[in-house]
Amino acid sequence: MAKNVACAGFRFAGLSCGIKTTPKFDLGLIVAEKDIPTAAVFTRNQVRAAPVELSERNVKSGLARAIIVNSGNANACTGPRGESDAQAMAHYASKAIGCSEKRILVASTGIIGQPLPVGKIVEATPRLTISARADGLENFTRAIMTTDRFEKRALELVAIGPKSRGRIVGVAKGAGMISPNMATTLGFLVTDVAVTGAFLKSALRDAVDDTFNCASVDGDTSTNDSVFVMASGALKNRPIDGGKAGEEFKRALHTVLDNLIHQIVRDGEGANHVVTIEVMGAPGAGPAETIARAIGRSPLVKTAFFGTDPNWGRIVCAIGNAGVKIDPSKIDVAVGEVELVRAGVGVGPAAESAAHEVMRRGEYSLRVHLHGGSGKAKHITCDMGTEYVKLNADYRS
Amino acid sequence: MAKNVACAGFRFAGLSCGIKTTPKFDLGLIVAEKDIPTAAVFTRNQVRAAPVELSERNVKSGLARAIIVNSGNANACTGPRGESDAQAMAHYASKAIGCSEKRILVASTGIIGQPLPVGKIVEATPRLTISARADGLENFTRAIMTTDRFEKRALELVAIGPKSRGRIVGVAKGAGMISPNMATTLGFLVTDVAVTGAFLKSALRDAVDDTFNCASVDGDTSTNDSVFVMASGALKNRPIDGGKAGEEFKRALHTVLDNLIHQIVRDGEGANHVVTIEVMGAPGAGPAETIARAIGRSPLVKTAFFGTDPNWGRIVCAIGNAGVKIDPSKIDVAVGEVELVRAGVGVGPAAESAAHEVMRRGEYSLRVHLHGGSGKAKHITCDMGTEYVKLNADYRS
Repeated sequence: MAKNVACAGFRFAGLSCGIKTTPKFDLGLIVAEKDIPTAAVFTRNQVRAAPVELSERNVKSGLARAIIVNSGNANACTGPRGESDAQAMAHYASKAIGCSEKRILVASTGIIGQPLPVGKIVEATPRLTISARADGLENFTRAIMTTDRFEKRALELVAIGPKSRGRIVGVAKGAGMISPNMATTLGFLVTDVAVTGAFLKSALRDAVDDTFNCASVDGDTSTNDSVFVMASGALKNRPIDGGKAGEEFKRALHTVLDNLIHQIVRDGEGANHVVTIEVMGAPGAGPAETIARAIGRSPLVKTAFFGTDPNWGRIVCAIGNAGVKIDPSKIDVAVGEVELVRAGVGVGPAAESAAHEVMRRGEYSLRVHLHGGSGKAKHITCDMGTEYVKLNADYRS
Repeated sequence: MAKNVACAGFRFAGLSCGIKTTPKFDLGLIVAEKDIPTAAVFTRNQVRAAPVELSERNVKSGLARAIIVNSGNANACTGPRGESDAQAMAHYASKAIGCSEKRILVASTGIIGQPLPVGKIVEATPRLTISARADGLENFTRAIMTTDRFEKRALELVAIGPKSRGRIVGVAKGAGMISPNMATTLGFLVTDVAVTGAFLKSALRDAVDDTFNCASVDGDTSTNDSVFVMASGALKNRPIDGGKAGEEFKRALHTVLDNLIHQIVRDGEGANHVVTIEVMGAPGAGPAETIARAIGRSPLVKTAFFGTDPNWGRIVCAIGNAGVKIDPSKIDVAVGEVELVRAGVGVGPAAESAAHEVMRRGEYSLRVHLHGGSGKAKHITCDMGTEYVKLNADYRS
């Protein structure tokens, strides 16, 4: 395989078609050599953008040839016109590629509620298709960015038998509107490993639940979030459908998604700290998740993260507000390796000083033990700083 | 009644006892001439401060003589020591006043998780009691403030028969940690009208549900929130226990609390805009409230309020995330008198410009119609600006 080939069996493209007011890239394409096993998960927001509806319909077959993506406009809350615009994106891509319209998936990201300038996309589609190359992944990655401060890419090898190694390559965009309960922001994964459609679908669902769905920046779930995975089978292994090889594939898929979500949270609009909240000793896994999310969603907790202030009172307060029955006099809280609260009471000023030092790190963990059962959960979040407010107050101005 | 008498039958005091590091007032007292009908509602956070537990126990009798309050320290998450500190506040106040310890209510507000410097309070209590005066309400109001930018006071007259007018006077503190599902922050109401204990209790509960519990600044419910009302009966009317006089009393109580909560939200840490969210056409009152709160809690919506950006996509997105089954293609949204979204689709640029002008006001309404039933709800909130982050990141530094 040539040095710059991202993943055998795929070509990638990215260019500027004029949706963004700057000359930044805003249209991207991933195209396979033929119709191949493909799976996707989509936002659980009830308000879903037109491209989400279209892609969900088309991916039900378990096969796709290409994904066309635009940034700068979400094509969400755009009514019947939005639906026909998404359809037009798929239609003209299928013409340029030479495949069935039903094998095209579509994604959009950007401002909600503005009509998509679909003419610009239609006009650029032939040029986009022609420019697709095996080493074009960087162009594609640039084309999907909106408020992202940096590109997000991840690669993991998959051991297929003693001598053969496949790969899973993932790229993602996302910095704001990130929240649990969905397939956060946009993620595109490709692999040269042969996998059955059914296995690919279940492996993606499991991996997303444990990675992208455990993260939040601001608790707002977007109308457009989607994660796609396409398997070219260029490695020519016997298609994986479970077993030991299936476990290895799932491990690699999980690693790529976990890597990407950490990059996304780190890019959380204006964020300086990635915090992994671990809740233990809850009455069950569900209640543990509820509490972890309540902590990760609290603006008072997140501004304390920003100020590197071990203000554990706010953490305990958020736990008490989560709506889960707990015993406040049993709560333990630790920041990194520093025990901050024992049995609901602060450990003292020395512990707070030590915790403050931990909180200056770019990444750290916040562990909560409730001593009320065996339920546990994990949640990845970031701090909320003045940059977050500035970015979101000025987004459209 | 003399000009500066706040409310017949009560004396008020406020002074600095040294809890705050600045010479600002931090200890306050309301004292009646005898044990009088008193009611209170408290935070629904499961983590409750020691003074909340004590006051809830003592107010069960329906009678109280006095309320002693400190600011600068919440006496929350302070374990058994916190309980005995709250008890000491009540004990020494009862000694100075000359009443049963069980007739003293206690409130604290400020930093969570730090031991209360109770010695300073105990030492100052005789001085506080002696300084209590009928015209001392302003001193009391100053003594309960923490991050408040201004004092919150409200007065409403109560028509008792053709010639007699009573009054309800309320003061409150609060700017951060404000959220629904509780008796937000601290509120102290006094009236010279004679009211039975049972009626006072139910009237307060109803009025709080419809005012303080419909408001949020940041979705974080405090461990200490309490609203108290004491009725001196100095007006010597036949004690109100319902009927027409009861309705009039409830109206006045509602007006005072509504007035106070608007002042509190306006003071929301760093806030410039008070927004009343009205949801109509939901499947029921509960779902309507859930949606109203989801909009009012979304950081993306609140930063758009701050930026006076009619970014209705974020509003529709928050509605879709609320967990209530709705039809996205039926959503109408209006800002003030400007229709912004009709049937899930934006009305257009002219409407957005007009909405932007509305959003520059200090107060406006955001109306959502879901056309899916007859449920409706109201929620009062504010914008989230850079000042909010700065205040909360630096709170303890």
